[in-house]
Amino acid sequence: MSNRWVEKLEARLGTIVSNPDNLLSAPMQHALLAGGKRLRPKLFNSVLVMFGLDIKDYLDVACALEMVHTYSLVHDDLPAMDDDAYRRGKPTVHVAYDEATAILSGDALLTDAFTVLANAQNLSAEKRIKLVCILAEKAGSSGMVAGQVLDLKATKQTIDVAALNTMHALKTAALFEAALMMGGVVSGVTDLHQLEGCGRALGLAFQIQDDLLDVESTQEAMGKSLSDASHEKASYVRIMGLSDAKEACRATFEKARTLCAALSVDAEPLHTLIDTIEQRNR
Amino acid sequence: MSNRWVEKLEARLGTIVSNPDNLLSAPMQHALLAGGKRLRPKLFNSVLVMFGLDIKDYLDVACALEMVHTYSLVHDDLPAMDDDAYRRGKPTVHVAYDEATAILSGDALLTDAFTVLANAQNLSAEKRIKLVCILAEKAGSSGMVAGQVLDLKATKQTIDVAALNTMHALKTAALFEAALMMGGVVSGVTDLHQLEGCGRALGLAFQIQDDLLDVESTQEAMGKSLSDASHEKASYVRIMGLSDAKEACRATFEKARTLCAALSVDAEPLHTLIDTIEQRNR
Repeated sequence: MSNRWVEKLEARLGTIVSNPDNLLSAPMQHALLAGGKRLRPKLFNSVLVMFGLDIKDYLDVACALEMVHTYSLVHDDLPAMDDDAYRRGKPTVHVAYDEATAILSGDALLTDAFTVLANAQNLSAEKRIKLVCILAEKAGSSGMVAGQVLDLKATKQTIDVAALNTMHALKTAALFEAALMMGGVVSGVTDLHQLEGCGRALGLAFQIQDDLLDVESTQEAMGKSLSDASHEKASYVRIMGLSDAKEACRATFEKARTLCAALSVDAEPLHTLIDTIEQRNR
Repeated sequence: MSNRWVEKLEARLGTIVSNPDNLLSAPMQHALLAGGKRLRPKLFNSVLVMFGLDIKDYLDVACALEMVHTYSLVHDDLPAMDDDAYRRGKPTVHVAYDEATAILSGDALLTDAFTVLANAQNLSAEKRIKLVCILAEKAGSSGMVAGQVLDLKATKQTIDVAALNTMHALKTAALFEAALMMGGVVSGVTDLHQLEGCGRALGLAFQIQDDLLDVESTQEAMGKSLSDASHEKASYVRIMGLSDAKEACRATFEKARTLCAALSVDAEPLHTLIDTIEQRNR
C-alpha cells in the first residue's frame, strides 16, 4: 500500500489553514505540519483501499480526522494540562507562540475540522452527516475529551489496568475507532461495529506500545517530551511491569488482527497497517 | 412572541450534558445553565416564527448555537485570555473548578454541539449538513475565533473604529449571523445573505451597547466582571467617546431594523426581538 497520498494530505492541510482570513495560519501550520505519523488518516485509508476506493477523492475526510487529533495535542500540551514543551520534535504551540494562541489554535482546528468535513467532496449529504456524527461523538464529552479528564485524574493516583484501559479506550482509541468507522461510512458499510471494535483494540495496543517506547526510547527518537514518568502519570509499564506490559501489547495487537480478520472483506490493507504500527520505534 | 419555549430549551440543554458517560456534566451545566440571555436561540427562533415554524420541533439546533456560544465564554474567561472571575453572576468555570476542567469543558461543549446538530430531529440530511457548515464557518478560524485573536491583540493597543468593527463583526456578530442564517436554513430560505447582513448589524449594535452598559452599569446588574476597562481593552466608548458611541449604537440598531424590513417576509418577530435587545439594561 503506497503512502504517496500522504504528501497530498499534507498539502491539503496546508491549504486549509492558509485561508487569507485566518489569523492563526502560522500556529495552526506549526501544529499540523510538524511531521506527525498521520495514523488516523492511514487507518481511514486502509478501509477505503479494502473497498477499492481512492483516498485522493476523500482527502478532506482524512484532513478533518488529523485536525481533530492535532487540536487535542495542542490543548493536551498546555501548561494547565500535561505542560509539555516539545511535540513531534518541535516546541509546542504555547511555547513557540503563547498560551492564548495555543488555546485558540486548538479551538480553530477543532471547529474548522467540521467545516472541512461538512464540505467534503464526492459524498452525499447523508454520508457527510454520518461522518460529522461519528467524529463529534468520538471526540466529545463521551469520547476523547472524557479520556483526557480521566488522564488528568489518574496523575499521581493509583489506578488499575481496567481503569487504564477505560482511559485509553477514550483518550486514544476513540479516534482510531472514528477513523475506521468513517472509512466504513465512505465505503458504504452499514454495520460499523466490527470496524469500531478493531479500532478500539488497535488504539489500546498503540497506547501500551507508547508506554513501552516511553521507557525504552529517547526523547530524540520519540520527538516529544518523555514526560509521563516525570509527571507520575499512570502507564501500563508502571502498573503491570515491563514484561507483562510487553505481553499485553503483543496480545492486544493480536486481538486487533483477529477482529480485522473477521471483517467481511479482504482486510489485507488494514493487516499491513497493523504490522507497520507494531513495528514502529517512535 | 412568547418565550416559554426557553424553559424547554434549558431543560434540553440540561439533558444533553447529563449523559451518564459525561464526566464533565457538572462544569458544563455550570456554564450552560447560569441564566444566560439565550439571545442566539431567540434570534434563531425569530426566523422560524416568521415562517410559521415552531421552535419546539427544532430545539436541538438552538441548543447547538447556545453550546457554541457558551464554549466561547468559558475559553475567553480563562486566565491566559480575558482572565475573568465572574460570568452570568457566578464564578467562571476555571474559578469554580480549575483551568484544565475549563479548557476541556469548552472543548466538550464545542464538539458536542456538532453531535447535537448532526442528530437534530425533523430535518433532512441536506439541511443538517448546511447547518453544520454555517455554524462551523461562523465559529471557526475565519469567524468567532478570529475575533478573539483580534480582541487579544487590541488590548493595550490603539485601534480605530474600523478595526473595532472588524473585531466585533467576527467575535460577536458572526454567531448572530449564524443564528439567523440557521433559522433561514430550517425554514427553507435559499438566499441567506439578507439574514446574514441583519445578524451582522445587530451583532455590532449589541456590542456597542455592551460597551455602553459596561460604562454605565454596575457589575451586579451585568452579572459579570466589568473588566474591559481594567484590562485596557479597546471599546467603542473609549475610542469614540460616550456621546458618539450612543449615536453609533442607535444608528446600528436602526441599520439592523432597515435590513430586517427588507426581508421578503413579515419580519415582525425579528423586529420585536431587536426592540427587546435595544431596551436591555444588562
